[in-house]
Amino acid sequence: MTLAYDGTAYAGWQVQPGETTIQGELERVLREVTGESTRVHCSGRTDSGVHARAQVAHFDLDGPAETRRLLQALNAILADDIRVRALAPCAPDFDARRGATGKQYRYFIYDGPVLPPFVRQYRLHCRRRLDTDAMQEAAALLVGRHDFAAFAANPNRDVLSTIRTLSILDVHRHGHEMSIRAQSEGFLYKMVRSLAGFLVRVGQGDLHPDSAVSILTSRERTARVPSAPPQGLFLWEVYYPRTRAPKPDPPG
Amino acid sequence: MTLAYDGTAYAGWQVQPGETTIQGELERVLREVTGESTRVHCSGRTDSGVHARAQVAHFDLDGPAETRRLLQALNAILADDIRVRALAPCAPDFDARRGATGKQYRYFIYDGPVLPPFVRQYRLHCRRRLDTDAMQEAAALLVGRHDFAAFAANPNRDVLSTIRTLSILDVHRHGHEMSIRAQSEGFLYKMVRSLAGFLVRVGQGDLHPDSAVSILTSRERTARVPSAPPQGLFLWEVYYPRTRAPKPDPPG
Repeated sequence: MTLAYDGTAYAGWQVQPGETTIQGELERVLREVTGESTRVHCSGRTDSGVHARAQVAHFDLDGPAETRRLLQALNAILADDIRVRALAPCAPDFDARRGATGKQYRYFIYDGPVLPPFVRQYRLHCRRRLDTDAMQEAAALLVGRHDFAAFAANPNRDVLSTIRTLSILDVHRHGHEMSIRAQSEGFLYKMVRSLAGFLVRVGQGDLHPDSAVSILTSRERTARVPSAPPQGLFLWEVYYPRTRAPKPDPPG
Repeated sequence: MTLAYDGTAYAGWQVQPGETTIQGELERVLREVTGESTRVHCSGRTDSGVHARAQVAHFDLDGPAETRRLLQALNAILADDIRVRALAPCAPDFDARRGATGKQYRYFIYDGPVLPPFVRQYRLHCRRRLDTDAMQEAAALLVGRHDFAAFAANPNRDVLSTIRTLSILDVHRHGHEMSIRAQSEGFLYKMVRSLAGFLVRVGQGDLHPDSAVSILTSRERTARVPSAPPQGLFLWEVYYPRTRAPKPDPPG
């Protein structure tokens, strides 16, 4: 299934005791609709407060299910900040995480003096105008295959290697609305928020664009790279070989 | 001052005992910042749950005030769903309501099967696709100077005449995102939501576009014209002769 969610009210994707999570809500509602207790596995867990435009997840059911009716039943019970955008049967060996060949995240920033109230849950607010050219210059230096240990939180936790290939990292502006696009076959923990935090510092003039190279080669996470706050981050798209994931409507 | 607000959490503009209102919040925060108890007058009260992109309001202060500092102080204390976009001294006889020469409202609809969670507080959700051409045809029949009693709630309350000139009423679509634009020198109570409610019924095929004429000439509010819900409605812009209202940034 393809999911969109506003992460504001949730303690992230993963089920945790005493917390309301996206995974927990989906499993609760699936149990209510189908009578089956099943685990929902996603392409990549999002942290507390992070949003998704098109998260992909899979689950197993024993009984039969008519997907169109199931989608409607799930959306009817779920809170309106979690939506099942599409639902389709998949191959028995489909795995939303292991099967993914790449992911795109977008990080949204508003850099005017007054943040419009309608996007307050979906933007990092920078009161002063950021230097887009400097940010774009720094971003271009990070594209490619590198050791991104300096742009990850707990880089040594659970990962064999901190080498990743960043196929896209660029910066767009439309008025005071800015977005950072990051695409890779796989990201380290908090990597996109670290990249965004670094690029914002470059945009504020605190760091020179060239510092991207020295930070990268240091392979050490330092205070020069802050994590940007979660509310600007959207899991934008997950890629699979062939067309194994259900196809959602075009972005609304 | 020019204001943007998300009306979701408020019982409308007007101060009411026991309710949190936009006016109440502004007056409370002005008192906190300036020490003065002053009344804030707007161009037109918005109902519970209705939003504003550029509401205009005025107030009197006895003491001096540096507008840039005052704007920052107000925004620092206000909840982030109300923002002062601009603040400027005005002529002593400026009146945000009486001085306005016109207003534009926009009503937003999403007509795809699954409402994106990020706009859930700002759209009417219609699950089936609306007929834009039929809606546009009906809208065109309502443009001009007419008696709009059939498109107002309590049409005889507080108004001498129910004749108004609708200078703009049109329908736009971009994918599943639709908007209805309504502009007039003045609106009757719940007139925009009544026009939107009627146009949605036309878009759903429940009413023929030509029914606009018979409803208008009936001058009677009936069940054929429902009020569309508040969350789709935005006070978009207020017009004044010359440049008496503070000018906000371009829309973000």
